[in-house]
Amino acid sequence: MPGNTFGKIFQVTSFGESHGEALGVVIDGFPAGITIDSQALQAALDRRRPGQSTVTTSRNEADQAQILSGIFQNKSTGMPICVIVHNQDQRSSDYDKLQTEFRPGHADAVFQAKYGYRDHRGGGRSSGRETVSRVIAGYFAELILPKTCQVIAHTKQIGELIAEKFDPDFIEQNPVRTADPDLSNQMQAYIEQLKINGDSTGALVEVQILNPPQNLGEPVFDKIKADLGKALFSLGTVTGVSYGAGFGVTSMTGKNYIANPANFGGILGGITTGEIITLQIAVKPTSTTGEKALAGRHDPCIAPRIIPVIEAMIKIVFADHYLRNKISQEL
Amino acid sequence: MPGNTFGKIFQVTSFGESHGEALGVVIDGFPAGITIDSQALQAALDRRRPGQSTVTTSRNEADQAQILSGIFQNKSTGMPICVIVHNQDQRSSDYDKLQTEFRPGHADAVFQAKYGYRDHRGGGRSSGRETVSRVIAGYFAELILPKTCQVIAHTKQIGELIAEKFDPDFIEQNPVRTADPDLSNQMQAYIEQLKINGDSTGALVEVQILNPPQNLGEPVFDKIKADLGKALFSLGTVTGVSYGAGFGVTSMTGKNYIANPANFGGILGGITTGEIITLQIAVKPTSTTGEKALAGRHDPCIAPRIIPVIEAMIKIVFADHYLRNKISQEL
Amino acid sequence: MPGNTFGKIFQVTSFGESHGEALGVVIDGFPAGITIDSQALQAALDRRRPGQSTVTTSRNEADQAQILSGIFQNKSTGMPICVIVHNQDQRSSDYDKLQTEFRPGHADAVFQAKYGYRDHRGGGRSSGRETVSRVIAGYFAELILPKTCQVIAHTKQIGELIAEKFDPDFIEQNPVRTADPDLSNQMQAYIEQLKINGDSTGALVEVQILNPPQNLGEPVFDKIKADLGKALFSLGTVTGVSYGAGFGVTSMTGKNYIANPANFGGILGGITTGEIITLQIAVKPTSTTGEKALAGRHDPCIAPRIIPVIEAMIKIVFADHYLRNKISQEL
Amino acid sequence: MPGNTFGKIFQVTSFGESHGEALGVVIDGFPAGITIDSQALQAALDRRRPGQSTVTTSRNEADQAQILSGIFQNKSTGMPICVIVHNQDQRSSDYDKLQTEFRPGHADAVFQAKYGYRDHRGGGRSSGRETVSRVIAGYFAELILPKTCQVIAHTKQIGELIAEKFDPDFIEQNPVRTADPDLSNQMQAYIEQLKINGDSTGALVEVQILNPPQNLGEPVFDKIKADLGKALFSLGTVTGVSYGAGFGVTSMTGKNYIANPANFGGILGGITTGEIITLQIAVKPTSTTGEKALAGRHDPCIAPRIIPVIEAMIKIVFADHYLRNKISQEL
Repeated sequence: MPGNTFGKIFQVTSFGESHGEALGVVIDGFPAGITIDSQALQAALDRRRPGQSTVTTSRNEADQAQILSGIFQNKSTGMPICVIVHNQDQRSSDYDKLQTEFRPGHADAVFQAKYGYRDHRGGGRSSGRETVSRVIAGYFAELILPKTCQVIAHTKQIGELIAEKFDPDFIEQNPVRTADPDLSNQMQAYIEQLKINGDSTGALVEVQILNPPQNLGEPVFDKIKADLGKALFSLGTVTGVSYGAGFGVTSMTGKNYIANPANFGGILGGITTGEIITLQIAVKPTSTTGEKALAGRHDPCIAPRIIPVIEAMIKIVFADHYLRNKISQEL
Repeated sequence: MPGNTFGKIFQVTSFGESHGEALGVVIDGFPAGITIDSQALQAALDRRRPGQSTVTTSRNEADQAQILSGIFQNKSTGMPICVIVHNQDQRSSDYDKLQTEFRPGHADAVFQAKYGYRDHRGGGRSSGRETVSRVIAGYFAELILPKTCQVIAHTKQIGELIAEKFDPDFIEQNPVRTADPDLSNQMQAYIEQLKINGDSTGALVEVQILNPPQNLGEPVFDKIKADLGKALFSLGTVTGVSYGAGFGVTSMTGKNYIANPANFGGILGGITTGEIITLQIAVKPTSTTGEKALAGRHDPCIAPRIIPVIEAMIKIVFADHYLRNKISQEL
Repeated sequence: MPGNTFGKIFQVTSFGESHGEALGVVIDGFPAGITIDSQALQAALDRRRPGQSTVTTSRNEADQAQILSGIFQNKSTGMPICVIVHNQDQRSSDYDKLQTEFRPGHADAVFQAKYGYRDHRGGGRSSGRETVSRVIAGYFAELILPKTCQVIAHTKQIGELIAEKFDPDFIEQNPVRTADPDLSNQMQAYIEQLKINGDSTGALVEVQILNPPQNLGEPVFDKIKADLGKALFSLGTVTGVSYGAGFGVTSMTGKNYIANPANFGGILGGITTGEIITLQIAVKPTSTTGEKALAGRHDPCIAPRIIPVIEAMIKIVFADHYLRNKISQEL
Repeated sequence: MPGNTFGKIFQVTSFGESHGEALGVVIDGFPAGITIDSQALQAALDRRRPGQSTVTTSRNEADQAQILSGIFQNKSTGMPICVIVHNQDQRSSDYDKLQTEFRPGHADAVFQAKYGYRDHRGGGRSSGRETVSRVIAGYFAELILPKTCQVIAHTKQIGELIAEKFDPDFIEQNPVRTADPDLSNQMQAYIEQLKINGDSTGALVEVQILNPPQNLGEPVFDKIKADLGKALFSLGTVTGVSYGAGFGVTSMTGKNYIANPANFGGILGGITTGEIITLQIAVKPTSTTGEKALAGRHDPCIAPRIIPVIEAMIKIVFADHYLRNKISQEL
């Protein structure tokens, strides 16, 4: 049954395989009359691009966005927007063995069991490469939100290295995308060492949403934290999500909990209060290890590259709820 | 915009306020010809009922389920099933002050901001009482799943008390619904002491899903962990969700991660493998503290009563995906 | 699979069988802060009530609307509104024979084939009685639309009797709900004669929508005429729908067609222009004839009673699209 | 708000403008393991192609289908299928005047009013060219249905010329796609004369569905006739739809109606009985007349080219309901 469409008003449909002709996305429900900057769109894509540094895969995918519909003379027309990225540098033959061999920790075997047939090349649809579609949609989502709203994700922890300083301007200036200038070198060295060993590492990504719009979230099932949770868990790499005090609440008393509004994480009753929203996201180590990892075409730590995707998914949820909220009160 | 319907094939629509005429649920997409046991339905409801012990609220709500449609001579007809529960023991006047007063940590103020008007009595629709609808739907969901599949939630941690033993038969035999016979008394005493102080506590609920059906989950957005995540975060009380190795992955290497399949939590590529599924759920302390809590009509720890609701939500997701999966392969 | 929910923002879920405990509807997505007049709601229901005259069934169903949720102190709260009608005067035993006997032209046999099990009493869910839910939803839909918008359905033709005059005030003053004062007596006599013969008649219902909101309809699949078409064909009794010049276009040239804007029926490109909208709806003769019809508990002509239902369905579509249209242009 | 997705299990998302980069479609929910014949897909597209004869537009669009995803080594993988058609022979400059000029009977003005901005070239998204996407989806829909099921549309009437013979093999052998060999020359001559006059004509298209699957249709809103109605009215050119006895019921008595099962049109209670289904569809004359029509780039009668689209839409509805029906009875 279909599962490749997300959102109710800002509606995103993703398609494409890792080594197929092209990946892409259809965005339906985008209002008319909004100016599109195709360079900014490309820049958003470039942020998740592999081959950016020693801590990411050495694959080099140009990932050139091509707009097929919905934009006329740089403005949205209210019609569905389709954007595609043609695949390149595919080296499908690298994956020939995967036709009959299932990699541990990968989706190969489950896709075979569920569908009885699959595109085995590079994980096919289960590849992280699918997130290209999400980053594209995230660019459009951002255009809907108030300009003051900022979604900032950063690498909070890798191994035992826990960032303590938070300098948002530093995030894009270091390959691990940590906000702590004092720790970036150590984090980078840790990942590079793992890479040499044919190993990888998990990470903790923290998100701060500054100046979020108020009143987002629709009771009872479409609470904002429910839809954010779904969006984030729809990323293959995410194994845990929490907001505000998160798992810390398990040993907290009610008096302590309500004493510090930061514990609420900017959400009450499943609806944004307008206060800063904080999220913690656990990202698992990439499952490709040993010889295959040594070949260098895999990420020893996915955090730096999943960060733009996490931000995109959050913006997609917010754009959808921003439009949904417009119809809550008397007309 | 509507947010009270959940699921694509097994479709649950919840309605009703804490102190309105009735709460209820419409279940559409339930197959025809399945035998309904109204006593078992009532027993499911009774499990979440308040007033069961010293560690829950003293409110006594009979919560009598009344079937309005979709069942004929104890069998489902394929038509939408509506079940309602009339409200009793409402004491609306207890809440008169709430019309203009907003309780910290509650949804009162955000509902007022979002809708401009609200039913303030007992939290109205934001009350935990709404979960009655979910427990009813969970009963029907269970009828769709293979009988061997078991969803077992238990209180893993309260304060600093962490359960280590796991005796599933013990869960229903103690008021805190822990699976550790050695710890139940301490947990109970801890909660009772907080109650005397007009305080409350958070908790960690662990879930084990035994013999889950294989192949549940629809790429890419409707991964099983995405829909479970949404379902669980749609409960007001949940602040964190993780599966398998959970937040432990943040300091784990890839080699360690894939060495122990238990880390995958029974899910790969967002699809169930058929192996046991494990989930960790953070439950915040109830926000009602101080004088109001002393009145005794609030839960000093919501874990024991949220456990049947958590199980219900998981069964609802599974029922929906169980039906969805039937259409994956060639006809 | 579920099929009992209609609409995307103004979302209507219908439930209940002809002879079950109750019929009802959940309306989700209704904005907060709108005043509800329960007497007007009851009056809307009374318009479709049987037993109103010699040309309708003699069954007498009080059809008392009971609001279960979503309304507080006569104002909507933005929460889902559930309204039910308990069944009375059911005489289920009248239908005992139907358990094994299938009536020609009825849904008995197809429900048995599709579901393998059914509530046979009075047609169960396939009974026209289900439209009670739609009339309730129509009342709420009307509250969303501009007050100047009027949906006026009337009996245009019965047998060979074709109304020519159009006096909208006359419609509620005669039992056949024709707008032609000169023809009402003949129409009534024609139906009464058929009733004596144990027979029934089809009819043509015409609808005029005065002062419709402009810009309703969402390309390409949710054109206003597409969603109206679905809404009207979802009534068991409707066998044909056309708008504007309707089937007359088949022998019309393009020059003639565009010469008279009335031919467009107030819709261009699937979007309302703001001009008057005209619809023609073919209503089949009730299939119960002969001895059973003589028992008097069936309508010899359904037109007068389907008219309030047709109006309700149109209002439901309009309310949904009215809210949907709010998000078309730049924010 | 989004309106470019159709269907619940077999889910079709259409995108693209008449003179944009490309038109296309994403089909989600297509089962895995089905063999795709790209030549047959192309042949389906060629059937609706303009420039086929003197009675259609002289525009010559190659309309080459390009598969971007979801198919691997000629078999479906269960992943979303994206197919696009690049636009050619666009002559956008032909339409320069349309930027500020609104053509009567076209959607130009309503798109401007609704969206405040539009792609004016050739009608943009409101162009009949959008139906390319539907024909592609129809090819895939057909692969899901039993091979015995046949959807046959033909031109029943043009002007006063009414086909009486029905030879299905003849339909593809004449440019007007009538099934009556005795009338095709007259019909063709009638259209050619109108074309010379810069005029056009409406038509009646009849559909026969042979060996339809039984039990399709989901009460109460998703009756098969409701979803067919929506699908057909979502075509800009359709002004009327009826099934079985159609508008003939308005002057029919119940005894006559039930005497001939053909009157039911193969549908009872909104569910297919397995008997032949008959539909009548009114198709309006193309609104481009006068000088513009003389330029020859418009269809003087759209019936021959809308017939493959009508068939496609019916197959799409049937494929969706065929999959939906699989979950009606006990598991």
